[in-house]
Amino acid sequence: MEYIKSKIRDVYDFPAKGVIFKDLTTVFKDAKALHQIGVELADLYRDKGVTKVVGIESRGFIGGSIAAFELNAGFVPVRKPGKLPADTLKASYDKEYGKDVIEIHRDAITEDDVVVIHDDVLATGGTMTAAYNLVKSMNPKKIYINFIIELSALGGRKNLPADADVTSLIVC
Amino acid sequence: MEYIKSKIRDVYDFPAKGVIFKDLTTVFKDAKALHQIGVELADLYRDKGVTKVVGIESRGFIGGSIAAFELNAGFVPVRKPGKLPADTLKASYDKEYGKDVIEIHRDAITEDDVVVIHDDVLATGGTMTAAYNLVKSMNPKKIYINFIIELSALGGRKNLPADADVTSLIVC
Repeated sequence: MEYIKSKIRDVYDFPAKGVIFKDLTTVFKDAKALHQIGVELADLYRDKGVTKVVGIESRGFIGGSIAAFELNAGFVPVRKPGKLPADTLKASYDKEYGKDVIEIHRDAITEDDVVVIHDDVLATGGTMTAAYNLVKSMNPKKIYINFIIELSALGGRKNLPADADVTSLIVC
Repeated sequence: MEYIKSKIRDVYDFPAKGVIFKDLTTVFKDAKALHQIGVELADLYRDKGVTKVVGIESRGFIGGSIAAFELNAGFVPVRKPGKLPADTLKASYDKEYGKDVIEIHRDAITEDDVVVIHDDVLATGGTMTAAYNLVKSMNPKKIYINFIIELSALGGRKNLPADADVTSLIVC
């Protein structure tokens, strides 16, 4: 984990003045760190019978699809509106300015599934909560929530659903 | 490969009337098919010394990051404008209506890299050509181009750079 942490890049004033952005592209581009991410994410869930990993567009596709591969599970994308071609379920949620919408295919999850929902960073938790509610509406056996980094100063964990089983690889 | 093919879903009239969209979400959500995708993509390049797999936002992140993981390479995203936090190179290219722009981090690729650029589908080839030119400007040792599906009726291969080494898992 120390190796992964050492590859995170702090970018100042992105996306707005005063923000220090935790850039994971410097983790993903490093072969050893990418490998560790896949193994460490999978290690959290190896005995859980996970059948699907849901990744949130688009940075959540990276860790999510690797974790799915390493767990021998399927991968399901949660996407921005209008991107998924078949019948979808939609959720809207509040952002700092206005609302945002995400979608998932209606046939992506079944009642037999054990699901991990993955995103790269937990900030305020709004997108993850919306994704959780979408997945929950399809009534899988169990839902886990997973992040690579949790930005504890933003307090996002308290905004996630109270019954959610949340694990972050790195809390900072 | 037959198993992967059997999981592709044809969606009619997406994104526009008269188009038959090759939907890979039904491949990715299937654990066995996702696993085969990762292994088959990696098998194309196991003896090539690949150090980086570049994935094009956002569907190219899925196969690209799994292939990187399986090849013990790093993963590099090519993204839409304004999404990458550090210093970037940009390329614009023509789309059916107007222009589009993609970006890559300027420090993502070095002269020591052997690179596979991956996207899920080869249609007209415009995005891939722009991505190829971005990667090429960073002067890596070698660039391979890779797709899961090539839509041969659209003739995209002839629009790709003449010196490109192109492989598609499935041609249809």
